[in-house]
Amino acid sequence: MRFDVVTLFPDMINQACSHSIIARGIDSGVIEVNTFNPRDYTKDKHKKVDDTPFGGGAGMVLMCQPYFDCFDAIDKDADSEVIILSPQGEVFNQQLSMELAKKKQIVFICGHYEGFDERIKQYTKAREVSIGDYVLTGGELPALCMIDSISRNIEGFLGKMDSAHFDSFSDGLLEYPQYTKPREYCGLEVPEVLLGGNHQEIAKWRRKQQFIVTYKKRRDLFDNFKKNCNNKYDIKLLNEVLKEL
Amino acid sequence: MRFDVVTLFPDMINQACSHSIIARGIDSGVIEVNTFNPRDYTKDKHKKVDDTPFGGGAGMVLMCQPYFDCFDAIDKDADSEVIILSPQGEVFNQQLSMELAKKKQIVFICGHYEGFDERIKQYTKAREVSIGDYVLTGGELPALCMIDSISRNIEGFLGKMDSAHFDSFSDGLLEYPQYTKPREYCGLEVPEVLLGGNHQEIAKWRRKQQFIVTYKKRRDLFDNFKKNCNNKYDIKLLNEVLKEL
Repeated sequence: MRFDVVTLFPDMINQACSHSIIARGIDSGVIEVNTFNPRDYTKDKHKKVDDTPFGGGAGMVLMCQPYFDCFDAIDKDADSEVIILSPQGEVFNQQLSMELAKKKQIVFICGHYEGFDERIKQYTKAREVSIGDYVLTGGELPALCMIDSISRNIEGFLGKMDSAHFDSFSDGLLEYPQYTKPREYCGLEVPEVLLGGNHQEIAKWRRKQQFIVTYKKRRDLFDNFKKNCNNKYDIKLLNEVLKEL
Repeated sequence: MRFDVVTLFPDMINQACSHSIIARGIDSGVIEVNTFNPRDYTKDKHKKVDDTPFGGGAGMVLMCQPYFDCFDAIDKDADSEVIILSPQGEVFNQQLSMELAKKKQIVFICGHYEGFDERIKQYTKAREVSIGDYVLTGGELPALCMIDSISRNIEGFLGKMDSAHFDSFSDGLLEYPQYTKPREYCGLEVPEVLLGGNHQEIAKWRRKQQFIVTYKKRRDLFDNFKKNCNNKYDIKLLNEVLKEL
């Protein structure tokens, strides 16, 4: 997968991609992250990339020319997706992450401080995506979140060790609680069932905990799971849990 | 506001905070960002911070001792909030951002790769928060998103120029489209109304565009706004828009 990021702050992208599992993914060649700075493409002698809005109002608006030319300079694969990070976009989630992981190239267009000239969206035919209902200074952190999340769904990116974990949302439920040594610490104990060797009981406890945690923390996800559940074992456990709650 | 971040990757936090508006907020003293590494607090001679899960399964689990001791080393203000970044948490949004901006201190506890021993949540009495329904490698990017978003709601953080923009969600609606010079570029034109000097017409066009954009892109937000709207002017415009759509 090739991630191309159009950004006025390339260092922010490059530094964040020099750590941890993203850096490893780049080293191993599973992913590639490039940055393109619209400021390098401006035809203005002061390297200006923004101007005042038509119709008045405070703030500045990112201009067409540097963004159009910067966008045109990127080699596009036939199987690419162009994404503009914006609070106006469809909300990113695990399903969209898995869908985008199948692409060969994703071009992210990041704004910063200010709004885009609407024609940048038209010209690039970008899909508008938001990582959540909150306002951020720029598209850089959202692009990094999406690169992280999408990469995790690309085959070969995660080792076996990593991939087993963090499977929240994989079947629409939250994770069961985890514990490691010691058995007791500062008066806090590990649930008894996990200390025995009964794997069937452990699996049952963990599945029930998933139902309980999801019920308590995210009723929306729980209701959705319950509506679509047609596994007999799950239905039996679900009913037990609902009686106990 | 003091942000204290418990993380195994302090460089990732510090580098990201050295750019743009966050760096300016730190320089001006409106916010402060500190990092604390649990690895510096481990009593294990190999500086181990994780171990295998009780009950079996792949992956590793972050251990109590380094996290408890690291957490205890942080000076806590009486008006502080402790947040653990986790896909299991309540979903972060603009309202929670504004609420948290009133605190004096926020302590973020970031996991990485793996799960937390459940007792870390119990011990720190942390509020679990998620930035969205997708899985990420660690809590660092979510903590950075929250620092960015929350800071923007702290008085004195944004200059007048910045604050006027990006007011998506401020009244539950998405933003109207913006345009800047030139009037026509690559065959794409600025809407006529914005080029005239009729401020009343411009304000009306922009408000209607907010309704249209929100209706088309986020029906959930639109329906919510419509249900709660009791401004006569807005109701009139809303009805006009609904007839036109």
